[in-house]
Amino acid sequence: MRNTLGNILTLTTFGESHGPAIGGVLDGMPAGVKIDMDELQRFVDRRRPGQSAMTTARSEDDRVEILSGVFEGVTLGTPIGFIIRNKDHHSADYSEIKDCYRPSHADYTYDAKYGLRDYRGGGRSSARETAARVVGGALALQALKHWGVEITAYTSQIGTVELADNSINLSIIDNNDVRCPNEEVARLMHDEVLKARADGDSVGGTVSCVITGVPAGVGEPVFGKLHAQLGAAMLGINAAKGFDYGDGFAFASARGSEVMDRFACTDGKVTTLDNHSGGIQGGISNGAPITFRVAFKPVATLMRDIDTIDRNGNAMTLHPRGRHDPCVVPRAVPIVEAMTAMVLLDNILMNRVSSIGLSTDLK
Amino acid sequence: MRNTLGNILTLTTFGESHGPAIGGVLDGMPAGVKIDMDELQRFVDRRRPGQSAMTTARSEDDRVEILSGVFEGVTLGTPIGFIIRNKDHHSADYSEIKDCYRPSHADYTYDAKYGLRDYRGGGRSSARETAARVVGGALALQALKHWGVEITAYTSQIGTVELADNSINLSIIDNNDVRCPNEEVARLMHDEVLKARADGDSVGGTVSCVITGVPAGVGEPVFGKLHAQLGAAMLGINAAKGFDYGDGFAFASARGSEVMDRFACTDGKVTTLDNHSGGIQGGISNGAPITFRVAFKPVATLMRDIDTIDRNGNAMTLHPRGRHDPCVVPRAVPIVEAMTAMVLLDNILMNRVSSIGLSTDLK
Amino acid sequence: MRNTLGNILTLTTFGESHGPAIGGVLDGMPAGVKIDMDELQRFVDRRRPGQSAMTTARSEDDRVEILSGVFEGVTLGTPIGFIIRNKDHHSADYSEIKDCYRPSHADYTYDAKYGLRDYRGGGRSSARETAARVVGGALALQALKHWGVEITAYTSQIGTVELADNSINLSIIDNNDVRCPNEEVARLMHDEVLKARADGDSVGGTVSCVITGVPAGVGEPVFGKLHAQLGAAMLGINAAKGFDYGDGFAFASARGSEVMDRFACTDGKVTTLDNHSGGIQGGISNGAPITFRVAFKPVATLMRDIDTIDRNGNAMTLHPRGRHDPCVVPRAVPIVEAMTAMVLLDNILMNRVSSIGLSTDLK
Amino acid sequence: MRNTLGNILTLTTFGESHGPAIGGVLDGMPAGVKIDMDELQRFVDRRRPGQSAMTTARSEDDRVEILSGVFEGVTLGTPIGFIIRNKDHHSADYSEIKDCYRPSHADYTYDAKYGLRDYRGGGRSSARETAARVVGGALALQALKHWGVEITAYTSQIGTVELADNSINLSIIDNNDVRCPNEEVARLMHDEVLKARADGDSVGGTVSCVITGVPAGVGEPVFGKLHAQLGAAMLGINAAKGFDYGDGFAFASARGSEVMDRFACTDGKVTTLDNHSGGIQGGISNGAPITFRVAFKPVATLMRDIDTIDRNGNAMTLHPRGRHDPCVVPRAVPIVEAMTAMVLLDNILMNRVSSIGLSTDLK
Repeated sequence: MRNTLGNILTLTTFGESHGPAIGGVLDGMPAGVKIDMDELQRFVDRRRPGQSAMTTARSEDDRVEILSGVFEGVTLGTPIGFIIRNKDHHSADYSEIKDCYRPSHADYTYDAKYGLRDYRGGGRSSARETAARVVGGALALQALKHWGVEITAYTSQIGTVELADNSINLSIIDNNDVRCPNEEVARLMHDEVLKARADGDSVGGTVSCVITGVPAGVGEPVFGKLHAQLGAAMLGINAAKGFDYGDGFAFASARGSEVMDRFACTDGKVTTLDNHSGGIQGGISNGAPITFRVAFKPVATLMRDIDTIDRNGNAMTLHPRGRHDPCVVPRAVPIVEAMTAMVLLDNILMNRVSSIGLSTDLK
Repeated sequence: MRNTLGNILTLTTFGESHGPAIGGVLDGMPAGVKIDMDELQRFVDRRRPGQSAMTTARSEDDRVEILSGVFEGVTLGTPIGFIIRNKDHHSADYSEIKDCYRPSHADYTYDAKYGLRDYRGGGRSSARETAARVVGGALALQALKHWGVEITAYTSQIGTVELADNSINLSIIDNNDVRCPNEEVARLMHDEVLKARADGDSVGGTVSCVITGVPAGVGEPVFGKLHAQLGAAMLGINAAKGFDYGDGFAFASARGSEVMDRFACTDGKVTTLDNHSGGIQGGISNGAPITFRVAFKPVATLMRDIDTIDRNGNAMTLHPRGRHDPCVVPRAVPIVEAMTAMVLLDNILMNRVSSIGLSTDLK
Repeated sequence: MRNTLGNILTLTTFGESHGPAIGGVLDGMPAGVKIDMDELQRFVDRRRPGQSAMTTARSEDDRVEILSGVFEGVTLGTPIGFIIRNKDHHSADYSEIKDCYRPSHADYTYDAKYGLRDYRGGGRSSARETAARVVGGALALQALKHWGVEITAYTSQIGTVELADNSINLSIIDNNDVRCPNEEVARLMHDEVLKARADGDSVGGTVSCVITGVPAGVGEPVFGKLHAQLGAAMLGINAAKGFDYGDGFAFASARGSEVMDRFACTDGKVTTLDNHSGGIQGGISNGAPITFRVAFKPVATLMRDIDTIDRNGNAMTLHPRGRHDPCVVPRAVPIVEAMTAMVLLDNILMNRVSSIGLSTDLK
Repeated sequence: MRNTLGNILTLTTFGESHGPAIGGVLDGMPAGVKIDMDELQRFVDRRRPGQSAMTTARSEDDRVEILSGVFEGVTLGTPIGFIIRNKDHHSADYSEIKDCYRPSHADYTYDAKYGLRDYRGGGRSSARETAARVVGGALALQALKHWGVEITAYTSQIGTVELADNSINLSIIDNNDVRCPNEEVARLMHDEVLKARADGDSVGGTVSCVITGVPAGVGEPVFGKLHAQLGAAMLGINAAKGFDYGDGFAFASARGSEVMDRFACTDGKVTTLDNHSGGIQGGISNGAPITFRVAFKPVATLMRDIDTIDRNGNAMTLHPRGRHDPCVVPRAVPIVEAMTAMVLLDNILMNRVSSIGLSTDLK
């Protein structure tokens, strides 16, 4: 816990927003996985700031430097250490907040926990830390090809603009700057963000994710239910406020008879005719696509004067001038995919020890 | 993971629904906590089956036997082992499902993972396992008195009957059989369950939880965010399908300016005037009440003939005759409280090591 | 740590010497392992008190009750909970030590750590806790048959009687009450123990262990070196004071040229002509027999008056009357085997995730 | 396990000998510890190669770069990431061993485990990895000042030259190149190493360690006994072959009456008049100095032609030309101290949660 995710495959991250570098160690990556560094960098670039009008203008090239664990293009089975230098420090931007508690930020809670904090750009609480997660996820994704697992996240809501389930084309997600799989809805979402930005405001949203290719039998059935691990990973992303899977919160108002996933047998293989469960039953994958949803709050930094208090309890007014995304959701998409990739690889590996005779699907 | 919850305070559970006993080991409970065994048993009894028309007729007295770790009424600091005997085995009820995969149950996924399963009453996937969690939670609750932490969960939705936030009285929760803090809504929920039961059907719902008395500074800010730990614990409860905290999914459609938690300073103490964040900012408690919500699906066992397949893929029809709750939500209430108690105690203890000079609040 | 051993395969133990029961949970045992309960009980009986003049007269039948995780004689992949009732309480024997700190016992250190202790029979610090480890080890041993791993521990020194390496017959270990693989030396060791006993004294010794059948490639090469894990497990046994493997402490006075394990290739298989390394190089097994040694101190309880202090610092004299082994070494033999079995099974399972394409030896 | 040490305070290391860098993440360091970077670098320099005739000529300046977790000279409570660049690569030296299995090295076992390895300079199995541990230990040492803990390791044996216990002066350890606390014995040890070196050979030895200032009550009494944790840490150091504490292996031939640590009460404080136990009873510190010993084998690389096999099993002869220490023991001294520091800090922090009311000694 704390700064480490996972059980057998573990990612430990480090780094403050305005320190010399952020980075991480991915341990437990099996030996023998071919690593394509260009593909890795392209995946990391999807999270990078400064990509569009949707995102902060902070200009970081987020060049990943792999320091260990990969030799001649193949994983060694040893820990993969990596760093990303922080280049575009505008520490001057943050002098105003040194002694201030910004509303709905982590300034006060870090002080309450640790007695001090790196106030520059949010320090450890900055979403910049998620770049290290995206590196870990990019590595996990390359290993998941071994089993044919595919993970696709996309923006399913921004503010009041919601995407209907039946009108999505997963192949076009990266064609628009909000990462929505429907071009028309994408335009509405784009406008929603720009409106908020014009008002010096921010707006929330949801990211949905669909995973195919996970064999039946993956997940640990009590405290480590596959959806509990996914949920913890998603709720660990900055600004995440909710998680549900399959029919999720809609189950609450349903009758059991309406949401049963009927079994069938096709070509000697057990399948389900429905997927209310979101591909997970009893915490274990059933072979159907795994689906879930993550809610994100509007970012707390507004481009408006904000009344608040300083660490001595005195009233003060903030005049924000930093660089911030009016909506985090588009950049959250690759983070959701990265976290998902690590959780799945961890659980697929874990399954290799679930029975004395190995299940053939999980070799 | 797997069968262990927690970091410093850990609960490991064991047991199948129709084996000789279920039980657990609570490790990391600090020495010196006074344990009131009657209070513990009363708390465990709240989850017990056979309490009302809401719940299965399985008659278990769920008598907790503490085997270690408590001496002369006080915790020793050593692991607390405990068991609850399974008494009312009706194994005969389950012969029909030995080779069958019940829809939306874990029969198939356990077989896919392990190659075999204890088919009697769901085996390890039975909600009976949660009795061990309630014991762990009951012990944690007694330790939490040291800091004045109070945890109250309640039923906030059953089927189409939803509770409004502004009409609740937390003191009456156990006065009605659905555990709803509003008597009028409780009657509607009660009727909703009986209607489903009369139809041989089941119905879903939500449990809400409010926690007071947690000092600011509790939680681990990256992967172990307090809400991520709470979310994982809640999603690890049988039939849970979603989790959100504070404004939760409603954040998705909000503007940042609408959901800011303004700071104030009262008597030299930092507080917030709003609580959209649900008492947690940046993964760390801010001293305000912590609030969250858990969605539960309708139980998968219906009192109707169900078409499905057996483990060889042959079509078959099930004629359910077992004992099952038409709605799990009322019995989930103490489970939510128990899981919450363990997560909070674990994190409060964890905070004792967050700085070299101890924070006075967490002694 | 604390009360849990292992990584993927974990044993958590609980119980005080004079509480209602001791027990444990073995989690991570793969599904599909056939469990022979008689064989398990026979293994546990080897540690049982009251077996011979070598050991305490405490009469416990140490009947193991498996509560979960085994169904129709086969492991389910779920946690195996078990208890052993404490029957022969002579709590009256211990009233004298309630407020007393016995020299070289854990009375004082438990009080210093926890502020209180269960003083009856040493409470949690009693070697009775190791019965739970022997159960875990007995289960692990049955799984290790899948790979043909064999573990044999034996008494190699008691007091001044040492066994020479070249005169051992592992098949006769359980034919004598000191568990020595040489009958003549066994008689000398037997006499050494009886002499100490006659003097109201106790005596130390060493246990050696040899493991065959572990394929090359097992162990984690940095902090989890196979010998470091074995060492930690052995040093976790009550009264253990030292551990070395292969040539061990004798390496200190050796030259590199004298202790090189030369490689050979036999039938296309890499082997070594020497085994100074004790079967482990760089923390990973090399396929040669794994050998190590554990030193045990003489038990601290003597049948003599002992001057000491009480918890208030006042001088007092103890008149021991309890039941204690004059030498723990013979009973430590099955404990060493049990701990070894759990460490090896854990590491063999761990190796299933060391490379993306599974090594055939470790299926 | 694997690449992470510790429980609450954890060090995760990464890096191969000839990759771009080695490094680590120290997580769980409490906030508020003042860090003196010069002192840290001086401590790390004690392990550095190229210091004297005792050690390899590899010339690395081992400059530590702290990337996070320390802000304005004080720890933040967030993970401390750090790297040390590998500068003096002589990769050409290692082409000969690419397909070769050097005797008593980890070449073969890494291949057996992972199916491939970074053959340059031993890759991950190189002792260069320990530089990261020394950084972690140097940070832990600065935190341990809070409690007044002092850790001193020294060379107690090299080859046939042994140090007597009664002739040591801990203040002069760094005055001689073998790190022996007796100048005369140091000269003999120095000669022993040079003789081995002149023969193209290597020689083993032991490191002893004494720790003062640890309050009574530190350590976890079952699997996490303080000496078991120390033993695992020491056995995790490259070339370590044995560990014992207090009287250690000498206990095996002792009678209980000879090795009892008598209690006394001085100024209202419990103390012991003897210290056979090495400061630990029942796995918990008793306030007396903690003492232990670690055995190291002679390094496996000799400056002689060595007959061995290649990875295809063909006989071949190695002509070593690399740079290697004829004796690792002097450089092991700071590594022993570093590992000890991390184990102790971890356990002292752990003790803050051992009772509900905090022990005053461990604040």
